[in-house]
Amino acid sequence: MNKRLREVNICVITDQRIAAHQDLQEVVRQVLLGGAEMVQFREKSMGDRAFYNLGLRLKKVVRKFGALFMIDDRVDQALALEADGVHIGQEDLPLPLVRKILGPGKIIGYSVKSVADAQWAYENGADYLGVGPIYQTSTKDAGPSLGVGVLRRITKAVGLPVLAIGGIDEDNVQAPIINGAGGVAVISSVMGAPDKKAKVQRLKGKVIEAKRALRGDRPLPGDDPLVGR
Amino acid sequence: MNKRLREVNICVITDQRIAAHQDLQEVVRQVLLGGAEMVQFREKSMGDRAFYNLGLRLKKVVRKFGALFMIDDRVDQALALEADGVHIGQEDLPLPLVRKILGPGKIIGYSVKSVADAQWAYENGADYLGVGPIYQTSTKDAGPSLGVGVLRRITKAVGLPVLAIGGIDEDNVQAPIINGAGGVAVISSVMGAPDKKAKVQRLKGKVIEAKRALRGDRPLPGDDPLVGR
Repeated sequence: MNKRLREVNICVITDQRIAAHQDLQEVVRQVLLGGAEMVQFREKSMGDRAFYNLGLRLKKVVRKFGALFMIDDRVDQALALEADGVHIGQEDLPLPLVRKILGPGKIIGYSVKSVADAQWAYENGADYLGVGPIYQTSTKDAGPSLGVGVLRRITKAVGLPVLAIGGIDEDNVQAPIINGAGGVAVISSVMGAPDKKAKVQRLKGKVIEAKRALRGDRPLPGDDPLVGR
Repeated sequence: MNKRLREVNICVITDQRIAAHQDLQEVVRQVLLGGAEMVQFREKSMGDRAFYNLGLRLKKVVRKFGALFMIDDRVDQALALEADGVHIGQEDLPLPLVRKILGPGKIIGYSVKSVADAQWAYENGADYLGVGPIYQTSTKDAGPSLGVGVLRRITKAVGLPVLAIGGIDEDNVQAPIINGAGGVAVISSVMGAPDKKAKVQRLKGKVIEAKRALRGDRPLPGDDPLVGR
């Protein structure tokens, strides 16, 4: 398991439609300046060659900042771009096959909604879990919001790093952390922000604040020792 | 180079939208009964899991007939489905990378429109060429039709098997063969036919007739010796 996954406070997922009229490489540079430790390149409907060419440009800037560069869904692109890994879910190629195709060296993130899913993903080669939608979100047809309780149950049951996703913004980013997530993945709140660097800085500040609270003064009863690391 | 590529007279490319309201596995069974030596599974907008699940069903029937099972565009699906290979073009992942990802054992078909493209594809690991659109076609935004002359020029210049594609039906299927193509790839003419087995049989009969003419009585001046094999 890639140790850097434990260090991810903020994963920013790209969406060119939301970040309209802006060069995506510059958008990514701004979120990295803001402190994002992971960038997930996600464009659902972009053609393969265009995705690849843009991916090369994004990877260059992500590498410069020493952050993790993940690809959403497209396993072949993760191989072609030599990304750090791929994020998939139940609508994508089956996890065991993706692990077989990518080999042991690549990171696989897997989207889950329940403890059972999480356990299955752990047993089938996932390196981290995306759990959500925690809150209501308009980004995609993600289903009803789960709330933060599921984060606590999953992180107590499964020893994988967890990123909370779905409707997360400054006003609600601390609850997922307090409930066990190691970090958060954001799309709309950052992609739609006028100052993306400042937005990531504020989100990350709040995540770190919540982790400090967990580690130090106010450990919550029943918390898994991994929480907050 | 896979020797079976020289034996492909008819490659049928799937399109669920054209073959509406029919089970695609049964459609594929019909075209195999008609004698197609290659099936290319092509669904541009289907989600990955659905594509994979349908691909498993199609592969099963294609294998039963001993035909070649190719995947359009999606390199990860070709790996996951353990298909014979993938067909790509200039809008997909770059050919040299796809060869690297798939390794030497898989077939790569590459779409070209000119001798220069064909030469480049040959040098960069393509196993066969798709050349077209030869005639006008409504299947996709394929650009203006090339005519059959380009087939003669490409097959004289490059030693790869060539499948002609684009607007090919019973009334015009022989000209591509006479001009150097080893076979034809068809979408609309077969996917839209009420009796797909009979349609493939008739197309294949005409291809074989044209090859016999080439081999026997009426060799055309300047033809490459590979033509018709």
